[in-house]
Amino acid sequence: MRDTHIVGLGTTPFGVLDEGIQSLGTRAISRALDSCEVTRGDVEALYVGNFVGGILEGQGAVGPILADNTGVAGVPAMTTEGACASSGIAFAQACQAIATGVYDVVVVGGVESMTGADTSQFTQALGSAADRATEGQTGLTFPGFYGLYLDRYMAEYGATREEVAAVAVKNRENGVANPRARFREPVTTEEVVDSQLIADPLRMYDCCPAADGGAAVVLAADDCAAEFTDDPLPILGWGHATGRSAAYRYEDLTTLEATTRAAESAYTQANIRPDDVDVVELHDCFTPAEIGDSEDLGFFEKGKGAVAVAEGRTAVDGDLPINPSGGLLAKGHPVGATGIGQIYEVCRQLRGNHENQVVDADVGLTHNLGGSGVVCTVTAVGGPSRV
Amino acid sequence: MRDTHIVGLGTTPFGVLDEGIQSLGTRAISRALDSCEVTRGDVEALYVGNFVGGILEGQGAVGPILADNTGVAGVPAMTTEGACASSGIAFAQACQAIATGVYDVVVVGGVESMTGADTSQFTQALGSAADRATEGQTGLTFPGFYGLYLDRYMAEYGATREEVAAVAVKNRENGVANPRARFREPVTTEEVVDSQLIADPLRMYDCCPAADGGAAVVLAADDCAAEFTDDPLPILGWGHATGRSAAYRYEDLTTLEATTRAAESAYTQANIRPDDVDVVELHDCFTPAEIGDSEDLGFFEKGKGAVAVAEGRTAVDGDLPINPSGGLLAKGHPVGATGIGQIYEVCRQLRGNHENQVVDADVGLTHNLGGSGVVCTVTAVGGPSRV
Repeated sequence: MRDTHIVGLGTTPFGVLDEGIQSLGTRAISRALDSCEVTRGDVEALYVGNFVGGILEGQGAVGPILADNTGVAGVPAMTTEGACASSGIAFAQACQAIATGVYDVVVVGGVESMTGADTSQFTQALGSAADRATEGQTGLTFPGFYGLYLDRYMAEYGATREEVAAVAVKNRENGVANPRARFREPVTTEEVVDSQLIADPLRMYDCCPAADGGAAVVLAADDCAAEFTDDPLPILGWGHATGRSAAYRYEDLTTLEATTRAAESAYTQANIRPDDVDVVELHDCFTPAEIGDSEDLGFFEKGKGAVAVAEGRTAVDGDLPINPSGGLLAKGHPVGATGIGQIYEVCRQLRGNHENQVVDADVGLTHNLGGSGVVCTVTAVGGPSRV
Repeated sequence: MRDTHIVGLGTTPFGVLDEGIQSLGTRAISRALDSCEVTRGDVEALYVGNFVGGILEGQGAVGPILADNTGVAGVPAMTTEGACASSGIAFAQACQAIATGVYDVVVVGGVESMTGADTSQFTQALGSAADRATEGQTGLTFPGFYGLYLDRYMAEYGATREEVAAVAVKNRENGVANPRARFREPVTTEEVVDSQLIADPLRMYDCCPAADGGAAVVLAADDCAAEFTDDPLPILGWGHATGRSAAYRYEDLTTLEATTRAAESAYTQANIRPDDVDVVELHDCFTPAEIGDSEDLGFFEKGKGAVAVAEGRTAVDGDLPINPSGGLLAKGHPVGATGIGQIYEVCRQLRGNHENQVVDADVGLTHNLGGSGVVCTVTAVGGPSRV
């Protein structure tokens, strides 16, 4: 397999943008292409992650349509979907195609427009990530799932409500400096634990906000990456795996096997261990998700993730900064765009120009999760020195 | 690149089945696995084409959920979407992954459940394949598009209404013997041209029916295909390409560039010419589509496709049998399942056990189109003698 590099990056802000997926996707892809020397004629394929465009906007075939909108009509283009991991999957497919020599240059995007939907449409749309034949029938929503998850985690490992709230406090603090974040005001522990009850014990500030947004990256093979940018970033490894489709099938509610499997693939391919990672963007759709994910990714022992956050170990200046972008909790979660949005943030860290720069960031990891753990992708990216 | 083979086949009938996508997909995939010696433990990835599951059934993440339902949870799984070409795209991605050595054994499925929707939901769902920012705004539906297409074709090439109706007569006749077809009653030329006006000059019998259905194939690499079946079918070539996203952008309304590009890729890879093809399953969503597609695929000169049908050249016993399954017009069009359903039919032809068997069928071609030509896949499969 050939090495694959990220040579271009583009994004819109994530937030309430009053803009549809075609416009958001076109902007993000065009910016990614404009950020490097790749021309439209160089692009050989387009992969786009999108989840609820059909339900909320009545727009399907987003990948093929964006190919025409961005001036690359003709190339193979497709939409990949795996709930909130839709663009993480697009990225994994694109990496595979370059690494195996199918293409030399491809564009990968993710896009979603959500904030124009009313509450009923919105709940219906996100609920489509649940297994409707089983869990969906019970009325269990994603806040409900993560409420159960948090209850179980606290009971099992003795974590306190305040330790869990520290995730929201950290990520909202990180969002203050990030111009791409939907929420740029900090919150206190008291505000988190006193905020509106959503799905006991989850409170409002434990939950990530919806957002509109698009993000894109341009990938190129080892042989030609240096033609397109002065600072290509090598993709060290990636993983894509599935887990069980419904919570009642889990052996352990607070261990998501899709994450552990995808992480193992990515670490093995990258030939790194969790303690080689310098900066992480992971799928903090709810505060307990960040804690559990940080354990499933091998950064902390099972049951120790909450204490690690509370002690500041995952702050921007901690020993393992997690979600310096603000994560889904502050940046927002335009579902189909989130996976590529995470890669965008990590790439800025590796190039040393992030608003919340992690010192000496040389290996970045992203983690993008779909459903209540039914599918996951993990990606490891290296700094320019690793080319 | 390694050779890739089809080693297992499974399908449900296409029709009014009162069954959701999870059930249909599970049935099709399980049958494909049961048709060969591939065990659940052999499966390394699952690709599933689905288009309107989110809109009509509120079910996303179909690929990952079907992985769990069919006993292969853990493997990378994804949904691919490109409107009515969704499962053709899944197939192309899966072929690529095996040919390049990423996996040895994968399952590819396609699934859709449509007939339970009311007319408004249904029109909205299929309309999501249109470019909503442009053509969608004008109210142009797919029958409308193919009405314009047929008008233009008749004006340009002097085809008669009766010649065009011959497509429906042929495909409905082919559907009589196919137990997987939704419509199994023949129609006459008079019935076609006198049927209800849908989008002038298109009549009801010019239009394919919706259907519920699932189809799946199991693919294996050259090195191991013979372990799983006595009669593996080699995939000779495939193509995946895009065209313009809206009709007003076309240079020539009756030439779909996504088809000509995808066909060129498939022919080149397979090292065959159109006249090497023995049997074809192509995307006859409307009668004029079959005529234009047969020209875009290189079987007939531009403007000669309608006469060819009327002369019987594309009948089961003609010199180039097209849609001996009954095609979309008789078999039905469960949109996300259609691409793999076509491959299923061609494989039965190549194994010599189709209900409308084409004599000496040794090279089969399938053609799966999305939107009004925004994306297309073409696949060439060889008979057992070509292994």
